[in-house]
Amino acid sequence: MQERATEEQIDAVIDAMVEVGLSVHRTTGAIQSILAGVGPTANVDLSKFEVLPGVLNVLRISSPYKLAGRAFRPEGSVIEFANGVKVGGAKVAVMAGPCSIESREQMFQTAERVKAIGASFLRGGAFKPRSSPYSFQGMGIPGLQMMHEAARAHGLLTVSEVMEISQIEEMLPYVDLFQVGARNMQNFNLLRELGQARKPVLLKRGIAATIEELLLSCEYIMAGGNYNVILCERGIRTYETATRNTMDISAIPVIHKLSHLPIVADPSHGTGRRDMVAPMARAAVAAGADAILVEVHPNADKAASDAAQTLYLEQFDELMGQLRVIATAVGRTM
Amino acid sequence: MQERATEEQIDAVIDAMVEVGLSVHRTTGAIQSILAGVGPTANVDLSKFEVLPGVLNVLRISSPYKLAGRAFRPEGSVIEFANGVKVGGAKVAVMAGPCSIESREQMFQTAERVKAIGASFLRGGAFKPRSSPYSFQGMGIPGLQMMHEAARAHGLLTVSEVMEISQIEEMLPYVDLFQVGARNMQNFNLLRELGQARKPVLLKRGIAATIEELLLSCEYIMAGGNYNVILCERGIRTYETATRNTMDISAIPVIHKLSHLPIVADPSHGTGRRDMVAPMARAAVAAGADAILVEVHPNADKAASDAAQTLYLEQFDELMGQLRVIATAVGRTM
Amino acid sequence: MQERATEEQIDAVIDAMVEVGLSVHRTTGAIQSILAGVGPTANVDLSKFEVLPGVLNVLRISSPYKLAGRAFRPEGSVIEFANGVKVGGAKVAVMAGPCSIESREQMFQTAERVKAIGASFLRGGAFKPRSSPYSFQGMGIPGLQMMHEAARAHGLLTVSEVMEISQIEEMLPYVDLFQVGARNMQNFNLLRELGQARKPVLLKRGIAATIEELLLSCEYIMAGGNYNVILCERGIRTYETATRNTMDISAIPVIHKLSHLPIVADPSHGTGRRDMVAPMARAAVAAGADAILVEVHPNADKAASDAAQTLYLEQFDELMGQLRVIATAVGRTM
Amino acid sequence: MQERATEEQIDAVIDAMVEVGLSVHRTTGAIQSILAGVGPTANVDLSKFEVLPGVLNVLRISSPYKLAGRAFRPEGSVIEFANGVKVGGAKVAVMAGPCSIESREQMFQTAERVKAIGASFLRGGAFKPRSSPYSFQGMGIPGLQMMHEAARAHGLLTVSEVMEISQIEEMLPYVDLFQVGARNMQNFNLLRELGQARKPVLLKRGIAATIEELLLSCEYIMAGGNYNVILCERGIRTYETATRNTMDISAIPVIHKLSHLPIVADPSHGTGRRDMVAPMARAAVAAGADAILVEVHPNADKAASDAAQTLYLEQFDELMGQLRVIATAVGRTM
Repeated sequence: MQERATEEQIDAVIDAMVEVGLSVHRTTGAIQSILAGVGPTANVDLSKFEVLPGVLNVLRISSPYKLAGRAFRPEGSVIEFANGVKVGGAKVAVMAGPCSIESREQMFQTAERVKAIGASFLRGGAFKPRSSPYSFQGMGIPGLQMMHEAARAHGLLTVSEVMEISQIEEMLPYVDLFQVGARNMQNFNLLRELGQARKPVLLKRGIAATIEELLLSCEYIMAGGNYNVILCERGIRTYETATRNTMDISAIPVIHKLSHLPIVADPSHGTGRRDMVAPMARAAVAAGADAILVEVHPNADKAASDAAQTLYLEQFDELMGQLRVIATAVGRTM
Repeated sequence: MQERATEEQIDAVIDAMVEVGLSVHRTTGAIQSILAGVGPTANVDLSKFEVLPGVLNVLRISSPYKLAGRAFRPEGSVIEFANGVKVGGAKVAVMAGPCSIESREQMFQTAERVKAIGASFLRGGAFKPRSSPYSFQGMGIPGLQMMHEAARAHGLLTVSEVMEISQIEEMLPYVDLFQVGARNMQNFNLLRELGQARKPVLLKRGIAATIEELLLSCEYIMAGGNYNVILCERGIRTYETATRNTMDISAIPVIHKLSHLPIVADPSHGTGRRDMVAPMARAAVAAGADAILVEVHPNADKAASDAAQTLYLEQFDELMGQLRVIATAVGRTM
Repeated sequence: MQERATEEQIDAVIDAMVEVGLSVHRTTGAIQSILAGVGPTANVDLSKFEVLPGVLNVLRISSPYKLAGRAFRPEGSVIEFANGVKVGGAKVAVMAGPCSIESREQMFQTAERVKAIGASFLRGGAFKPRSSPYSFQGMGIPGLQMMHEAARAHGLLTVSEVMEISQIEEMLPYVDLFQVGARNMQNFNLLRELGQARKPVLLKRGIAATIEELLLSCEYIMAGGNYNVILCERGIRTYETATRNTMDISAIPVIHKLSHLPIVADPSHGTGRRDMVAPMARAAVAAGADAILVEVHPNADKAASDAAQTLYLEQFDELMGQLRVIATAVGRTM
Repeated sequence: MQERATEEQIDAVIDAMVEVGLSVHRTTGAIQSILAGVGPTANVDLSKFEVLPGVLNVLRISSPYKLAGRAFRPEGSVIEFANGVKVGGAKVAVMAGPCSIESREQMFQTAERVKAIGASFLRGGAFKPRSSPYSFQGMGIPGLQMMHEAARAHGLLTVSEVMEISQIEEMLPYVDLFQVGARNMQNFNLLRELGQARKPVLLKRGIAATIEELLLSCEYIMAGGNYNVILCERGIRTYETATRNTMDISAIPVIHKLSHLPIVADPSHGTGRRDMVAPMARAAVAAGADAILVEVHPNADKAASDAAQTLYLEQFDELMGQLRVIATAVGRTM
C-alpha cells in the first residue's frame, strides 16, 4: 500500500482480495502496510488490485505457471520419439531441412544428406501464408506426404508447422513433432487443441514474448494432458537493427532453471543471415541447448523461401563437426 | 558493396539483381561501388542479396507498401458508415463499451449512456479465448446479437473483434466494423479474407510491430479491394515496466505522414490502467488521432475482463468534456 | 523460495537476510515458503539473494527511492524561481531557444521573440562535445554570458546543460536552471555535486532508463539537500525506427503518480523531427506535463546543430496558440 | 522523394545537398525520383534533409565510421601488449578479477589463482561512484597500485575502468588496458583524450547502444591515433526481465564482419547472475569472441560489489576447462 493509504483504503483492498478467494496477511510497518494474499492466484487478474485507491504496487510471488515449472519435474523432461530418438537427454538433437517443401526430389535429397551429416529430424514447411498473394503458398498436405516418405526412407523423424486447428487432424499421419510458430505462440485455441493431440509439440517463442509468457503458453498445451512440449528460442525484437532479431542465448540457461522442458535453438530465424547461423548454433549448444533447428537446402540460393538464412549442405556438415566438439565441453554428445 | 569487393563479386550481385527483374545502375566511387536496382521490388526478398559475397548493405528506397501509402490518396481517406458517421473527417469519432459482452442489460445500459455522452460506436468482445480453460470464454454470436440490438436502439454502430476466418460470415449481420486484434496483425489468411468482406476493418498494431509492418498488413486487406481500413495504436512493448505497454503517441503523426488511412487510439489497452486512460486519450486527440476506442462499463469493478483498465461512466463523461476542448485546439470537433 | 527448497537452503537465506540488517518473516505454504524481510533495504543489493541456492525470486516491495517519492510531499512540489516563475503550478511553463548558442544577435533575437510568444525560460547549449573533432564545439562560458544578458533584457530565466563537475561553478552566474542531459542521467558524481548547488536542476531521462531509475537518480541530487529537481521526458529507445526515439508520453501521468516532482516534456529530442514536435508538445500538455522545452531558432534551417528538430518561430507561435487551448482542458493556464 | 514531390521541392533538396558539399545524381523513375549524394558525408547531419518538403526518406549508403571499419584492415587487428600477450590472435585471452579492488591480500590471492587457472589480465575497479553516498567508493589510485603489484608479481597485465579525463594521467603507470564503461561509451571528451593516450582501450557497449554507435565511438579514440581499441559486449536492455540485460551474442560475429577490431565478452555484467556466467562465457567463445572478461573473487559471497555475478574460483577453473575445449572447435587456443 502507499505510505499515505488510509485504513478505509486498506480495508477495501483486503475485501477485494478475500472476494477472489485469497486469505490475507497484513504487515503494518513503520512506513507502510503490506498485504499478502495466499491462495490459488493463477486465474486472478492482479491489475484489478493495482488500480484500487491507496495501492502502490502488486507483485506476484509464486510463478503463474505450474505444469511447465521446474518443480513439476525437478529432474527435467526427456521427450522420447517412436524410433528411440530423445530430446532433452545427453545427446543434442539436430533438426534440419528446407524452409519450404518444394518437391519430392528436394526432400529425398535433403533427407539423405542431413541424415548422413547427423540430423535425426527432417524439417520442412507445407503452409506458407506469409508470402504475398501472388507468390508460393506452400505445397500443403501432399508436401507433407513427400517429406514423411523421404524422412522414413532415411530413418528420420519429421517436424512441420501447424497454423490452424483444422490442420492438426490432416497433418497427424505425416508429422512426428508439431511446430507452433512464433506468431501463434499466444493462439490459445490452437494450443488447447494441441493439448489433446497425442504428438509432441515444439513451441516457438514470440518475438516480443517474455520467457514467462512462453512458459504460460505451455500451460495451455500441458493442461490438456500433452506433456511432450519442446520450447524454442528463435530471436526477440530489440532496438538493434544489425540483425533481424536478437537471438536471446541467455534464455537457454534461464529456461533450464525455470522449467523442466527441453529447449531447442533456431539460429536460422534467430539471425536471418546465413553467415550468422553457424556462430549462433555453436553458441546455443555451448549454452546448453537440447537441440538445434537449422534451415538447409541442397541448393540454398534457389530456395523458395528464406534463402538468405539457409545453409549450404557443406556449411551444415562443417558446423556439425564443430558442434560435436562443443557438445563434449558441456558433457553431451551430438 | 564492401570497399574490398572484387569485380567478380560485383558482377555476381548484378546478375542476381537482373534475375529478379530489376534494372541495375552502377556508381563506382573512389572508395566503393553502389548498385541501384530499379523495378518492381514489392515481392523481392532483399536479404537474399545481403548474404552475397562482397555486399555491405542492402537498403530499400521505395516504401514496400503501395495501397496504404499516402501517395495513393494524398488528401486522406474518410471511412463512411451507413448512418453517416465518418472516421477520418473533421469530427473525432468515439468508440466505447465493455471489454466483454456479458448480458443484454449490460449492453443496453452501456449503449444508452455512451450514446448520451457522445460515442458513435458501441464496442464489445464476443470471443475471449485469452482466458484460462476454466474461465469466461465470451458469449459468442448471441452476445453480438445483443450488442447489435442495443446499438441500433440508440443509433450506434458496432465494432467487435474477429479472431478466425470462420467467424467473419456469422458476425457480418451484427458488426459494422471488424476489429483485428494485435495478436492477429500478421495473420495474413484472416487479413486476406477480410479484404473480401464488404465491411470496414479496424486493424490493431501488434505489440512488437513497426509502423511499416502495420502498413504492410493493410496491403493484405486492401489488395482484396476493401479500402476501408482504420489503423489502431494500442501500445508497444518496450523495456519500461511501469506501464503494461508503452503507448506510442508519435505513431499518430507518423502514420498521418506515411499513410492516407485514419488512425484510432486505444488508451485502455495502451496503458492497462484506468488512471492512465484519460491522460493518454487526451494526448492521442491532441496528437491528431481520428478516433478513440475506450473500455467503459456501467459497473467497471465487476467487469468480466480487463476490469483494471475499464473507465467508470462518470470518468468517461468527464473525459469527453476535456476531449471536446482539445479537439478544437487541433481544428476538429468531437 | 523454490518449491523444492530444503530447510538448509531456507535457513541459509534467512541468515543472509539477517546479516544485512533485515528482520525476517517466514510464511510456510502448502507449496512453497516465502521469506519477507523488513528493514532498511535502500542500500541492499537484492541480486545477492537471487543467486543463493533454493531461491526462486527476489522482489522489492517498498520503492527504492524516498525523497523523490510522492509520499514525501503528497501535495506535489512547485519549483519557484527568483522572478516568481513557477514550474509545477497551475501555469504550464515554456522553455524555448536554440540547440546551440551561436551569437549575441541570435540570442537577443530569440529572447525577444520567445518572450513575446509566451516563454519564461530561454534555453541554449554552450558545450557541444557531441560533434566531431572538426566541427563546432559550442561557445562555452562567453556564450552563456550572452544568453544570460539576452534573457535578462527580456525578463526570461535561463536553462543550459552542464556536462562536467568543473563547469558548475563557472556556469552558476549565468544559469537559473542546470540541465543534466540524458547521457549523464547516471553520472552520479555530477548529480551529487549538483545536490550541493543552490540552483534548481532539470534532469533528463536517459534513452534506456526506466522511470524508477530516473527517480533513483533524483535521490543523488536531493540527498545533498537540493530538492528543486524537475524531471524531463525526451524519448526512449525502442525497436521502432520511424522516429529517432519513442517519446513516452505515459511517463508523464506515471511520474505524477509516483513522484511529487514536476515533469517537463522535450518533444524536440523526443522526436528529432520538426514536423513531429507540435503534435507531441500538444500530447504532452494534454497528458499533464508541467512544462515544455522546445528548440526554436530565428533561422531554423541554418542552426548550427539539431536543425532538423528546430521549430521556425512562426511554428512555435502557432503551437503556443494550440497549447493554450489544451491547457484549459486540463485545468491549467499557459 | 515522395511520389507527390514537386519539381520545386526536388530542386530545393538538390540545392541543400550541394550546399553541404555533395555531388548529386538524380534518377527519375515512373513513380518517384531518387537523389543520390556522393561525397564526404561523415560530418553531415542527414536528418536535416529528412524534414525538407517532399522528402520521403533519407538513407546513408556508406558506413559512417572509417577507421573502425573492416575495410581499414581487412586482415583484422591484433592488439599486442608489452609482455607479448595478444588480443585478437589465435589465442582467446582471459581477463579476470574482482569487481572492486578491496585489499592487497585480495589482489595477490586473486592474481595467483587466476594466473594459475589461465588468465593473462587481472581486472579490478578502483573508482566506484555507482554506490550510494554512504557506501564503499572504491580504493582509488592506491588500489590500482596494489593491483599492479599483484599482477606483475604473477606475470599478469592489468585492466581497470577510467571514468574521468583527470584520472587518465594518474592511472597510466598502473594500467595496461584502460576500460571505458558502458555509461561512458558516448562520453566523447573522455574518448578523445584516450585517443592521445599510448595505452590500449577496452570500450564497452552501452546498454542502449547499437553496434553502429559503438563503432562510431571508436572513431573518437582512433582519430587521435590510438588504434589499439578492443570492443566489449556486456548486454543490452530489452523488454525481457528474467535477466538484468540481454547479452547480445550475435554482436560478436556481426562486429567481426563490420570491423577489424577484436571483441571481448563480459558475461558477468551481461547476465548479472553467477549461474548464467558460465553458459554465456561458453556461448561467447563458441561465437568467436577474442577474449572474455569475468568477475571472480577469492570469497565471492563477501565481495564488496557485484557479489551476485561474481564467480567462485572453483567455478572459474571449471569454466576454463570447458572453454579450452570450445576454443579448439573454432580453431583457437585458450
